[in-house]
Amino acid sequence: MQRVESEIARLIQEIDYDEVTHLFTMLSGGKRLRAKLILKIAPDDEKAPLLAAIVELIHAASLLHDDVIDEALLRRGVASVNATEGSKVAVMLGDILYSKAFTELVGFNKEIAQTIAASVTALSKGEMQDVKMAEKFNSDEKVYLDMLYLKTATLIEAAAKASALLASKDAQKYAIYGRNLGLSFQIIDDILDITSDEATLGKPAMNDFVEGKCTLPYIYLHEALDAQGQKRLEALHAKPLEEEDSKWIKEKMQEHKSIERSFELAKELSNEAMQAVKDDTELVEILQIMIKRSY
Amino acid sequence: MQRVESEIARLIQEIDYDEVTHLFTMLSGGKRLRAKLILKIAPDDEKAPLLAAIVELIHAASLLHDDVIDEALLRRGVASVNATEGSKVAVMLGDILYSKAFTELVGFNKEIAQTIAASVTALSKGEMQDVKMAEKFNSDEKVYLDMLYLKTATLIEAAAKASALLASKDAQKYAIYGRNLGLSFQIIDDILDITSDEATLGKPAMNDFVEGKCTLPYIYLHEALDAQGQKRLEALHAKPLEEEDSKWIKEKMQEHKSIERSFELAKELSNEAMQAVKDDTELVEILQIMIKRSY
Repeated sequence: MQRVESEIARLIQEIDYDEVTHLFTMLSGGKRLRAKLILKIAPDDEKAPLLAAIVELIHAASLLHDDVIDEALLRRGVASVNATEGSKVAVMLGDILYSKAFTELVGFNKEIAQTIAASVTALSKGEMQDVKMAEKFNSDEKVYLDMLYLKTATLIEAAAKASALLASKDAQKYAIYGRNLGLSFQIIDDILDITSDEATLGKPAMNDFVEGKCTLPYIYLHEALDAQGQKRLEALHAKPLEEEDSKWIKEKMQEHKSIERSFELAKELSNEAMQAVKDDTELVEILQIMIKRSY
Repeated sequence: MQRVESEIARLIQEIDYDEVTHLFTMLSGGKRLRAKLILKIAPDDEKAPLLAAIVELIHAASLLHDDVIDEALLRRGVASVNATEGSKVAVMLGDILYSKAFTELVGFNKEIAQTIAASVTALSKGEMQDVKMAEKFNSDEKVYLDMLYLKTATLIEAAAKASALLASKDAQKYAIYGRNLGLSFQIIDDILDITSDEATLGKPAMNDFVEGKCTLPYIYLHEALDAQGQKRLEALHAKPLEEEDSKWIKEKMQEHKSIERSFELAKELSNEAMQAVKDDTELVEILQIMIKRSY
């Protein structure tokens, strides 16, 4: 990973603007999940660290713009650039990181470059769908999963596929791995938003629903409720929740096993991912650790 | 140009999201200056309309984000997407258009793709410098021209250079043409902001200075004033102007020939551009028309 960090530092340096170098130090690098995945899939390719750096710049840019769009004041537990420097700076810095990443991407072969670039269109589209969908209660599982795929899985899918291409491995299998890893990771995140307490989350529990996001457990609950219950749930959407109402939602989710059903889907997707790369023990382990995270 | 419009429509269609198709119809296409330039430089290349469409998508994306950053409510005389749909939609739509353009760019050869992609980093950097510089009175001509080059000339320069590469013409000459066209166009725009009346501009005159932008005539005026005058000018920066103060600025600009000096630079840059492509009468004409625009 040291080589990835050096590549990231080099690209930022090449932008040749002190303001950008300074602002970039304010971003938490996060877990660098995508970069680690790329290095694991293409450990011997000399261009893998650069590809990993590009994907991390894209990821950082997308988070900067996400925070503007979601008006988020926190990112990875610290104040977001949106909060400390304002939304304009977050938009501009995101644009600079995006375009620098794309400029470097051109040095790769067409299929790799196109895979990564197209995933950015997909994730921006997913972001727009996510915002649109928060306007009213969505009870359609397929619509939700399509958005989730675009918004949270396409860049991981593209990173896995591109690094497999770099390493001359079976790109299709690694694409499935990346997509399902991304999807099941996010489904578990959505579950944790309901089952964890405020201290663990660093934000109020059930915040997704308050923000208008009908994640899988809410969709499954809606499906299981009678007409009266459905009405009550819909009426609570996208508003601050009273103690009594959040208690009702949790009880009903327990009664109808909405969390279990969501978790089952995450496990199913994760199993499919393991199946796709079953000979690669390290990649299988990543999934196992992730699935355990939910208990 | 019909082929460029079809290519743009095809790319928007390929994004495959009704919301985007709908939002895109709300954007005024503008003069399509960059597309026209590309078609004039590479009229016989079958990929020229696609390259022109890509550059126009990039330009549209940059304007969407500019309007968020400048909090602009008008764009090309009509309400901006920022005004009617909100800044979040403008950010997301811009990201989608940028990434779609980059995805298509990958189909071109590396030098062409890199030329266009790098110009987007430059223009985003220029945008950030522009915002930074508006915070205090800038009296440094070079700093101003560097920013102006990045923000307003790099994409035109890249469009001219990339289309020359496509047509196997002398890329360096066309790059000079594009850069100087962009710079002199913007300098004349800055002059018109001072010399035109509100009815012509569709916004209050001297709006640049009120917004904190010290364009060339203000820089030249500052240079020519005595210490007391400089103090007065600096004190007026980035505030609504009283009738009396704007009158004083205009009188002093007349006395010190600040407008003429700015116009001389625009003409000089424009002459250099004509010199670079002197055998291409159509390109020379574009410059002549532009220079006349200021009187």
